[in-house]
Amino acid sequence: MTAAGRLRTFLDGPEAEIRDAVRAWIEEPGNGAVTDLPREEHRAQVLAWARELAEGGRTAIGYPVEYVGEGAVGRSIAAFETLAYGDLSLLVKCGVQFGLFGGAVLHLGTRRHHAAHLAAIARMELVGCFAMTETGHGSNVQAIGTTATYDAAGETFDVHTPDAAARKDYIGNAARDGGMAAVFAQLVVGGEPRGVHALLVPLRDARGDVLPGVTIGDCGAKLGLDGVDNGQIAFDHVRVPRTALLDRYAQVAPDGTYTSPIENPAKRFFTMLGTLIQGRVSICGASITASKAALEVAVAYALERRQFGPPGGPEALLLDYRTHQRRLLPALAATYGLHFAQERLVAQLHAVFTTGAGDRERRELETLAAGLKAIASWHATETIQACREACGGHGYLRSTRFAALKADTDVFTTFEGDNTVLLQLAAKNLLTGYRDQFGELDPLGVAAFVAGQVLGTIAERTAVRKVLPAGALLDRDIQLGLLRWRQEHILAGAARRLKRGIDAGRAPFDVLIECQDHVVAAARAWVDLVVLEAFADGVRRCPDPELRPVLDRLCSLHALARIEAERAFYQEHGRLSATQSKAVIKAVNALCAEVREDAALLVAGFGVPRCTAPSPARLEAAA
Amino acid sequence: MTAAGRLRTFLDGPEAEIRDAVRAWIEEPGNGAVTDLPREEHRAQVLAWARELAEGGRTAIGYPVEYVGEGAVGRSIAAFETLAYGDLSLLVKCGVQFGLFGGAVLHLGTRRHHAAHLAAIARMELVGCFAMTETGHGSNVQAIGTTATYDAAGETFDVHTPDAAARKDYIGNAARDGGMAAVFAQLVVGGEPRGVHALLVPLRDARGDVLPGVTIGDCGAKLGLDGVDNGQIAFDHVRVPRTALLDRYAQVAPDGTYTSPIENPAKRFFTMLGTLIQGRVSICGASITASKAALEVAVAYALERRQFGPPGGPEALLLDYRTHQRRLLPALAATYGLHFAQERLVAQLHAVFTTGAGDRERRELETLAAGLKAIASWHATETIQACREACGGHGYLRSTRFAALKADTDVFTTFEGDNTVLLQLAAKNLLTGYRDQFGELDPLGVAAFVAGQVLGTIAERTAVRKVLPAGALLDRDIQLGLLRWRQEHILAGAARRLKRGIDAGRAPFDVLIECQDHVVAAARAWVDLVVLEAFADGVRRCPDPELRPVLDRLCSLHALARIEAERAFYQEHGRLSATQSKAVIKAVNALCAEVREDAALLVAGFGVPRCTAPSPARLEAAA
Repeated sequence: MTAAGRLRTFLDGPEAEIRDAVRAWIEEPGNGAVTDLPREEHRAQVLAWARELAEGGRTAIGYPVEYVGEGAVGRSIAAFETLAYGDLSLLVKCGVQFGLFGGAVLHLGTRRHHAAHLAAIARMELVGCFAMTETGHGSNVQAIGTTATYDAAGETFDVHTPDAAARKDYIGNAARDGGMAAVFAQLVVGGEPRGVHALLVPLRDARGDVLPGVTIGDCGAKLGLDGVDNGQIAFDHVRVPRTALLDRYAQVAPDGTYTSPIENPAKRFFTMLGTLIQGRVSICGASITASKAALEVAVAYALERRQFGPPGGPEALLLDYRTHQRRLLPALAATYGLHFAQERLVAQLHAVFTTGAGDRERRELETLAAGLKAIASWHATETIQACREACGGHGYLRSTRFAALKADTDVFTTFEGDNTVLLQLAAKNLLTGYRDQFGELDPLGVAAFVAGQVLGTIAERTAVRKVLPAGALLDRDIQLGLLRWRQEHILAGAARRLKRGIDAGRAPFDVLIECQDHVVAAARAWVDLVVLEAFADGVRRCPDPELRPVLDRLCSLHALARIEAERAFYQEHGRLSATQSKAVIKAVNALCAEVREDAALLVAGFGVPRCTAPSPARLEAAA
Repeated sequence: MTAAGRLRTFLDGPEAEIRDAVRAWIEEPGNGAVTDLPREEHRAQVLAWARELAEGGRTAIGYPVEYVGEGAVGRSIAAFETLAYGDLSLLVKCGVQFGLFGGAVLHLGTRRHHAAHLAAIARMELVGCFAMTETGHGSNVQAIGTTATYDAAGETFDVHTPDAAARKDYIGNAARDGGMAAVFAQLVVGGEPRGVHALLVPLRDARGDVLPGVTIGDCGAKLGLDGVDNGQIAFDHVRVPRTALLDRYAQVAPDGTYTSPIENPAKRFFTMLGTLIQGRVSICGASITASKAALEVAVAYALERRQFGPPGGPEALLLDYRTHQRRLLPALAATYGLHFAQERLVAQLHAVFTTGAGDRERRELETLAAGLKAIASWHATETIQACREACGGHGYLRSTRFAALKADTDVFTTFEGDNTVLLQLAAKNLLTGYRDQFGELDPLGVAAFVAGQVLGTIAERTAVRKVLPAGALLDRDIQLGLLRWRQEHILAGAARRLKRGIDAGRAPFDVLIECQDHVVAAARAWVDLVVLEAFADGVRRCPDPELRPVLDRLCSLHALARIEAERAFYQEHGRLSATQSKAVIKAVNALCAEVREDAALLVAGFGVPRCTAPSPARLEAAA
């Protein structure tokens, strides 16, 4: 096997079979990403593709075996990640249908809901929405306005949109295809508010007509993902039966008795949300795939395109210029790091959802998913942009795919949790050592909780260490040590500042605002460490003596590019002298020149499928 | 007048009248940016708009008075900058037609061409292309492949595309509307190559049919600017009369005698290119306008949207969060800085083109235009992205305009000169103290020329100064001093490295590659200084006692945000201690909190027009 083939096998890991199956599907004529299609045709094409995948029988890989699934969460993520090489509207449509809507039924519902719906969802016979976000509330889900009021006499819930801000918004599958929605609403039973719960509410009849009491709007043209029919949904006292409540974590008896196995309402809410984490992990993976796709195009171009050069000879390849290496190669290295970190995240997800897990394991998973999704989606945004620019005017043509990659992934920084909010969530878990049991998205909790903690543990771990020995920048342990020191120091500092503010009697919210950039930095630094640890582990695990040094160089480039980016911090804290700091810059330049020789191999290892856009014949069939 | 009105008057400056006229046109129903239109309809709409503007009689402001113009270069840029609040395809279409094509005729042609074409161009009776870039060569224009061979017998030029790489590419007005092109080609006279010259070549007849020997392709869907009909043009031995040569800088007599007032061929080439600098200045201005438009939306949203907050009270405004302030307010400050720098650039342009100027003034203009265009267009890309993310899912709807702003401005980093190439050009001029007379885009020249220079001047200016006194971060002179020190130090260092490499006998190209990041950093640091100087000057010039402190705070935020971004450098070079470096971060946070109170005023001062998209009736008329 070629080196590229062996690298691909190593990167694909245990789920190579499903990855190759998805690649093969994308490479079939007409299954590639849409480059230029009117919105309604794009939507029709995406629906047709989703149905085709459903007929193929592998859209429920993560569902239990008794409901047409394979009970294989890790495999389902691998399939989803790989699908991101194709049309990203299809990816998101699948995510909404099989992941979010199906996931809500699976994780928040009980046997009754599973039996009634899961197989139909997997087969696209029931197309559904995940109706959580409202016009007025996205990040702060606990404050949504939609109500579901129980009427014991009729044994029904009255689902209602009290005002414009409570309208469900940006909901995939709403504008065109959705027959039902998992609606998140404030449950009111016997006049008592019980917090946010989810119910299944029909939206359209069998002919596709919108049902009475339901008003649906179309979000219309978006920045990207125009093949997904996002819309708004409002409810005017829509009645659904008592059994519509997805009642795994809370039950309402016919007489209106409310019961739940989780006593604390906040804990109940965050437990429910926690089961939906797969969406976040999936988008993290898709962000990494999109970065790979962009890098493959830009590196290929840089190894073919020549411009300027020494007199007499041929012009120089773009990738021989240092500025070009600087644009692409640290991004390539970071993409590899994120790949290995994602492997770790998926393994954790799989373990939590298949072998069962305690609160701490769930909280660790939540932290990694939040932090990694934020960093990976920002990385995708930056990398795709850098790759587009590195291809000049050529990169501005829609045929190079940058247009779709850029536009479609743009919202990855927002959906499944705004990145800044997610980093605060991750920081909170780190600050509380995973001991905080509830309060997922409430930034106030960070300040309040830390104030009650003894900070000994954190402070102890950040005991002062020796200054970096000279000439040791390529030592993996020293690289890891620098990232670890930064992570621990920032975390401890943030904790101390929060505690000091609260102890001084100041309002927790004001204290939090004042430390907010520090708190977010703590989460970023932690993700940096986790990514480098995962990368280093990937290098160690690589069984191929020819590939290992390639990955090892790449890992050093990633580590030193991160250290270079934070070298102001390291100098501020006496971890790098001025001379050492300058040496880091030189080392990154030198590593760029070395990794340049591996660049073709490194992008070939991704196994990016050759796409062909939908043919006119297929488009007519889909219309 | 309100504070916002007074601020707008101050920012609008002497060309307020034309700015307001353009704003008023954009605000007319149906003249706002297109948000969601099929490509051919968008192209038709843009052409109709351009014709409407031409009928309005102010599309030739920069042309001489005898050719329907006003002889007012500065005013023409002000109009163009303001037009960037509308549809950016219209902006670029106007840039191609009146700026690039008209500019080539004006600056490279002589009276004969002016009399024949300028009025028709201004009235859109003659629609034309600027055919410089080829599939194989964009940045390195001197290496283009199209030939124009003189045939003395027929007194014609034979314009020819020898291979696929020499095909003209990405050419605006080519795919649909262009009747003629200013074609850049290697001139061959009497068998002798004379370098790149421009000729007017008809493309289509009066009915719009493509002429024999001309092959035109359509670039099709692009990442953005889909209302501009970019295309490819190939020539198969197309004959044009001798008078088609734009012959201001080089003439071919009927018998084939080649003459030029500029002896040196390289100097001749760069003199010709130099006359076309207005395009670069215009795109720089448009980048700043686009940043203003994005900030206006994002700041308004952040002052309206609430999410989370202290218990009991209403949720907090997004702009009260430090992370949100950090996202938007330094970008707002930088936009103001760039605004004032652009004023300076336009004044220089106006002076060079109306009062005449020596080589040094032209070289200074070239340097500022190159550096500022690079930094302003990257700033636009980053700012629009930050603003989109700061508006969450709402920002992903096409109706918020981020989609068009993002997609349409994306290529600003590429056209009118790739930013990385432009920074090298700027650095070269700085390194040679503007003494290098030719060699605009050839990076090799940098290394070769510097090797021949005595570096005394630069080295002298960078004599060591005192370390920053404590607590002086808000002192404008200290802010300027820090940026100046950085600029001079990096420039001198780059010069020394280049000279050392060349003196050691190494190949100039290898030396350049090795110092390339250093060279680019020198240009960036210089632009940073120029922007801050212009901003500081703007604050000083502000006549309004209420506004001046507002601008002063904003200027400090900009200065310290730049210093914060480069604080690793300042520590590496002993200009900031670790403690002072941390103090810079705190000062930026404090200034963000102060500027937050001015944010509404600061975006109102831009005078962003309220846009309304084209109505269906107008669209039908345009189709």
